[in-house]
Order: sequence, then C-alpha cells, then structure tokens
Amino acid sequence: MRDMSNSSFQRARSPEAKQQRQEAILDAARALATARTVREVTLSDIAEAVGMHKSAMLRYFETREQIYLILTAEGWREWSAHVCERLGAIEGPAAPSVAETLAETLVSRPLFCDLLAQAPLNLERNVSLDAVRDFKLVALAAHHSVALKIQDVLGVGAPPAREIASVATSMAGALWQMAAPGTALRELYRSDPVLSHAIVEVRPRLTGILTALITGFENA
Amino acid sequence: MRDMSNSSFQRARSPEAKQQRQEAILDAARALATARTVREVTLSDIAEAVGMHKSAMLRYFETREQIYLILTAEGWREWSAHVCERLGAIEGPAAPSVAETLAETLVSRPLFCDLLAQAPLNLERNVSLDAVRDFKLVALAAHHSVALKIQDVLGVGAPPAREIASVATSMAGALWQMAAPGTALRELYRSDPVLSHAIVEVRPRLTGILTALITGFENA
Repeated sequence: MRDMSNSSFQRARSPEAKQQRQEAILDAARALATARTVREVTLSDIAEAVGMHKSAMLRYFETREQIYLILTAEGWREWSAHVCERLGAIEGPAAPSVAETLAETLVSRPLFCDLLAQAPLNLERNVSLDAVRDFKLVALAAHHSVALKIQDVLGVGAPPAREIASVATSMAGALWQMAAPGTALRELYRSDPVLSHAIVEVRPRLTGILTALITGFENA
Repeated sequence: MRDMSNSSFQRARSPEAKQQRQEAILDAARALATARTVREVTLSDIAEAVGMHKSAMLRYFETREQIYLILTAEGWREWSAHVCERLGAIEGPAAPSVAETLAETLVSRPLFCDLLAQAPLNLERNVSLDAVRDFKLVALAAHHSVALKIQDVLGVGAPPAREIASVATSMAGALWQMAAPGTALRELYRSDPVLSHAIVEVRPRLTGILTALITGFENA
C-alpha cells in the first residue's frame, strides 16, 4: 500500500497528472454523496474509492469539506447555466412558469439541494477563508446570473429578483433536508400517523412557495 | 474527580435530583451555544461547564445532538406561545404586521434560529428515532398553533398559513446561518468589497420575503 501511494504521488507531479488526480477525487466524492447523501461520506470513504491514502489526498484538498464546497460551486455553475436557458425559453404568463422552472430544475438535482443546505452550516465552517472566498465568488456570480434572468423574464426589479433566487435555493436546501429521502427518518414519518405532517414533498411545496412569492413581488 | 462523579451519580438517583441534573445540563448547553453558536459546543464543553464526567452525562442524554434537539423543542414551544400572543394583538391591515412580527420574534431569538437550521441537518441525524419522534411532536404542535393564529389574523386558508409559518422558520434558520454573526466569515465578507453581496442582514430580508409571500397568498 505504501508503494502504491508513493508511485501515485510520483505520477501526480506534472500539472496534468495533478489535475487528473483532483478530478478523480471530486468524481469519487460526487458519486458517493449522490448514492448516500453528503453527511454519510467521510474522507476515508473518498480515499478508499479513489485508491489513495488519506494523507496523500490532503495534498490536494484541505479537508473533506473543501471537496464538497468545490462541488457546491460546480453545482451553482451547472444549475445557473441550465436554469437561465430554461427561463429564457418561457413564453406567455411568466409567474407560474418561473416558479415551476426554478422548483423543477432544483429538485431534479438532489446532490445540489443537499449541498445548498450543507454549505453555510457545515462546509464553509471547516475550510480556510481563501477556500470560502473562492466558493463565494462562484456562487455569487451564478446567483447574479439567475437573478438577472428572473428580472428580465418577470419584469420585476433587481432586489425582488435576487430574493426570488435566494428563497428558491435556500428553501430547496431546507425542504430537501426535511424530506430526508431514503433515510430511516422518512420511514418513521410515513409509518406513524401522528407524524404525517412531518412528511415533506419538496417539488409541490417549493413550487407553491415560489408562486406566492413571485405574485407578492408583482403586486407589491 | 472520580469521587465527585460518583457522588453526583448518587445524589442524582432520586427523580427530583435526576431532573435537577438534566436541567443543569440543558442550562449549560443553552448558555454555551448562546455564547458560541451550536456548532462550536462539544459534549466535553457541556460536561466541563456542569462539572460532570462525559460518561456520567450520557446517562441522561443519548448524545450532544439530543441535548440540542431538546433545546430546539423548547425553542419551538417558547417562540410559538410568544408569537401567537403578538399576532393576536395585531389591529388594522394585517399583512405587513404579520410579516414584521414573525421576523422580529425569530431574529430576537438567535439561538432558536441557529437550532432551526441545525435540527434537520445535524441534530435529528444523530439521535434515536424515539428522540426524533418526541421532538417532532412538540415542533409540529407549535408550528400548528402558529399556523392557526396566522390563518385567523390574515383570513387565509390553512395550507397557505402553514406555508407562511414554514417559510418564516426555515428562512430564519437559513439566513441566520448565512449571516454567520460573530464569525471570521462575517469579517471576511465585510472586509472584501467583491464579497459585499455575501453579507446577509437577517431581519430586513426576512421581513421582505414574508411580506411578499403573504401578499402573494392573499392575491392567489
């Protein structure tokens, strides 16, 4: 095992090899969290999946949380590009379509929903301030693009557009965590009649909230 | 130290002594989290503050997370009683007053805001299902009382009233975490001009979101 780690480190000394190695770590972290949720993945799990020693992996990333913060930035970039395209294609009365498009594109990205809630509570708090800064610049730029497109499609002002994007992403994260898909918690809520109100269906709830919010800003 | 732990355990064998001991642990956990935020308090910190051994403390509570889940339930009960009284006193046009009352009563309870975000991500996931069930029953009942009062004051239906209470509490938690008061993160946002959009002022943002949401449900 020691030999393998040494040879990996040797191979990874060129910039290309280093980048390949980083990509492999991010791919493994993404796949594990998609299968199990972010909170169930340890640094050791990622190291094992990628065939590296934990100590060698920490030459590429500060902490487990930095790996997931980078994936959160990637999620912001990917979602922002996709949702802007979808919002730009809306014709006719915009309010319900904007709410549905925001909700649908978020709910169909469960890992991004998970990361959106994890980032401020758990990820940003276990990395260097430089890593937070890198992340924030990407997230703010992506948020800005989505807000500009909402402003354009709905014809509302910049502050409401920013708030609609913020509520969409924050509530997607919060509702997804409360829904706890695939966990023993979700089973508990389902099996116990007095807990039926604890069951959260993310997509219809998020669509309803965003429809009311947009209508409210349009009537302000 | 060992003697002290033994004598504490002896003293705590009567039901009254046991309850006193539990209250002392909850008081210490509350005070530490109020001073430092929930994520910065370990089980050892609480044990030290209350003068017990960690192992002795675990006879009263399953985990650090159960202690904070009990304080979240307490927070729901206390906030719900207070906000219902405040909502009941509203006269005149209700929408802006309801939004302001919800925002103000939440923001003035920073520990509850912290716990509202911590509960689904971190607290409910590190306790037994029995402990989750106990917590959920209290939280659902408190949420139900607030929703009934909102329904009454605004004259909206039950589903919108429930959603207004949900968005108020979820966004209070999310915005409070993003605001990160008293942390190095908050300093970073303040000191770096390109990060100025990362600064979150919870009270005006929450009031604006809830005002639009309520207006939207009233115009639906």
